[in-house]
Amino acid sequence: MSDLINEFREYREKMNDKILESGNKVMKRIYSVDTLAYQDGALPVKTKEMLGLVSSMVLRCDDCIKYHLEKCHEQGMTDDEVFEVFSIANLVGGTIVIPHTRRAVEYWEALNTKAGINTKS
Amino acid sequence: MSDLINEFREYREKMNDKILESGNKVMKRIYSVDTLAYQDGALPVKTKEMLGLVSSMVLRCDDCIKYHLEKCHEQGMTDDEVFEVFSIANLVGGTIVIPHTRRAVEYWEALNTKAGINTKS
Amino acid sequence: MSDLINEFREYREKMNDKILESGNKVMKRIYSVDTLAYQDGALPVKTKEMLGLVSSMVLRCDDCIKYHLEKCHEQGMTDDEVFEVFSIANLVGGTIVIPHTRRAVEYWEALNTKAGINTKS
Amino acid sequence: MSDLINEFREYREKMNDKILESGNKVMKRIYSVDTLAYQDGALPVKTKEMLGLVSSMVLRCDDCIKYHLEKCHEQGMTDDEVFEVFSIANLVGGTIVIPHTRRAVEYWEALNTKAGINTKS
Amino acid sequence: MSDLINEFREYREKMNDKILESGNKVMKRIYSVDTLAYQDGALPVKTKEMLGLVSSMVLRCDDCIKYHLEKCHEQGMTDDEVFEVFSIANLVGGTIVIPHTRRAVEYWEALNTKAGINTKS
Amino acid sequence: MSDLINEFREYREKMNDKILESGNKVMKRIYSVDTLAYQDGALPVKTKEMLGLVSSMVLRCDDCIKYHLEKCHEQGMTDDEVFEVFSIANLVGGTIVIPHTRRAVEYWEALNTKAGINTKS
Repeated sequence: MSDLINEFREYREKMNDKILESGNKVMKRIYSVDTLAYQDGALPVKTKEMLGLVSSMVLRCDDCIKYHLEKCHEQGMTDDEVFEVFSIANLVGGTIVIPHTRRAVEYWEALNTKAGINTKS
Repeated sequence: MSDLINEFREYREKMNDKILESGNKVMKRIYSVDTLAYQDGALPVKTKEMLGLVSSMVLRCDDCIKYHLEKCHEQGMTDDEVFEVFSIANLVGGTIVIPHTRRAVEYWEALNTKAGINTKS
Repeated sequence: MSDLINEFREYREKMNDKILESGNKVMKRIYSVDTLAYQDGALPVKTKEMLGLVSSMVLRCDDCIKYHLEKCHEQGMTDDEVFEVFSIANLVGGTIVIPHTRRAVEYWEALNTKAGINTKS
Repeated sequence: MSDLINEFREYREKMNDKILESGNKVMKRIYSVDTLAYQDGALPVKTKEMLGLVSSMVLRCDDCIKYHLEKCHEQGMTDDEVFEVFSIANLVGGTIVIPHTRRAVEYWEALNTKAGINTKS
Repeated sequence: MSDLINEFREYREKMNDKILESGNKVMKRIYSVDTLAYQDGALPVKTKEMLGLVSSMVLRCDDCIKYHLEKCHEQGMTDDEVFEVFSIANLVGGTIVIPHTRRAVEYWEALNTKAGINTKS
Repeated sequence: MSDLINEFREYREKMNDKILESGNKVMKRIYSVDTLAYQDGALPVKTKEMLGLVSSMVLRCDDCIKYHLEKCHEQGMTDDEVFEVFSIANLVGGTIVIPHTRRAVEYWEALNTKAGINTKS
């Protein structure tokens, strides 16, 4: 299952490098604002990552979901917490979010497995 | 071609089970409202499945489209009828819906083939 | 309440005329395909108008909703039927559709009032 | 400015009543799941309301934004916190979210004014 | 008709000031990247404003449309050119873009009137 | 890498044929309006293809992006130009567009490679 994780990470990193090396200043700045936005501030990193996750879910972007799931996992989120984020996303965004939730659960499990954690579900 | 169908069904079922077994009550309720919504009422099941299909198309969710195509097929929809649903989706949702229509046609054909029906197109 | 209806219709007609008089052939063709798509075919007009309505709701376009509500009303849809369309839209599209449903109910009531019908709700 | 608040609340309540009185069970259930989802659980109410707010912003639903701003205000969110939610929404959702952020700031100010708080900005 | 223009400009400016004065660095940076992106580069300003306009249309953001219409007008776009942008938006984004096109035509006319130009349509 | 291109082209062509052979007139007309819209007019083909590309990016349709990248490539767009289109798309549409930009860069590179051009990035 960690293939799922490695494949995502490698492609993401390789292509991000290409984008940053293109010389386009606007793209470079968007990436740097992105880094800034999720830093500790009035709200802690964990909350911000949950905000990033739920936004990615309602906008139905699988790769963005994977990225924020990784960050949420690093922040020590529990299975129950992450499923509550999923539930808000499915409620607000509708059943159209369900297929993305399936893939999110798969990726979350892969992250748990990699870290030696048993997923609750 | 029925691999396309089996693969979709198996993954869908496996991951839905995980979501339902997670213990999250909101997710469970969303699934049960989903079942309720497509039952026979003032509008017949067939009409409701067409409503689900067209919604999935304009929101461009391939897995949702597959699911409702299966249900529409079970309801005995003809090729001409399903293409009229596609046409409304492409008109309202724009040419951005075309790639999803291509995959929808492929899945519809697979459903026809599995049932021993020749697709018109 | 019929002000709601008249205001919508007048603005819509006035601006559609301007678009059609602009000489842009693509816009003209889109309007003519739009007319063609909702005509009686393998599926009856009423079904097609419901498909247009539910698509407009999940894509959250208030003016499109109003337009299709008028057409659904002309097709003799009952309150129960229209609420079943609303329910599919809110399920598939999520609670984000609720504010548009509120305005849809208001417009539907206005159409009923104009036609001398008491709305059920 | 509290007209902005009252007008929103009154219309919302009046039309929600009509939807619930329509007798449509699916709509009723969606409303009840909605209530359930934002209750205290593995994640506290305040976090869930922020999740609802950011989702409403990236999906660009002004009325949903207003509703969650009210709930966030009740939860004692500060100006700095709410602007950090706005910033994630604008980053993830793009500059297309800016006009909705303008209206969100106006509504947040109205909530502050009503509560006798000076908004920071 | 210039009320339409003034009202938009004044509200936009007033609320943008509040956002920039909030002290949120991410919001400030997003605004500055926004300024950078539409400057003359490999592509001329006029082309970039058309790209901003068509994006705003398919994402159906009326205020963003107004803003880019102003910029396109400053760049000397003709009625025929702007209608060709509208036509791509309606084709790609679907008939759901039509109501936004109606309002865009109204705003474009107001800009023409203010500049002493007769709109073609 | 040209497998990426061939695979896309073959599937696209095969399924488009099926759609056109279905006998659905609305679908056929949508395809013909699509051809008309990108022809030389008040705006040149190259500009229109950029409009199609940026629209496809903010609406996040990978196949539509591929198609317009091909057309942009045929029109002789440079790497710098295409990255400026990407930058507007990421700014207006938000970081949710980044994963699609990664795949767009990959496809653009494949088109360059096929044509014997070294991509800048």
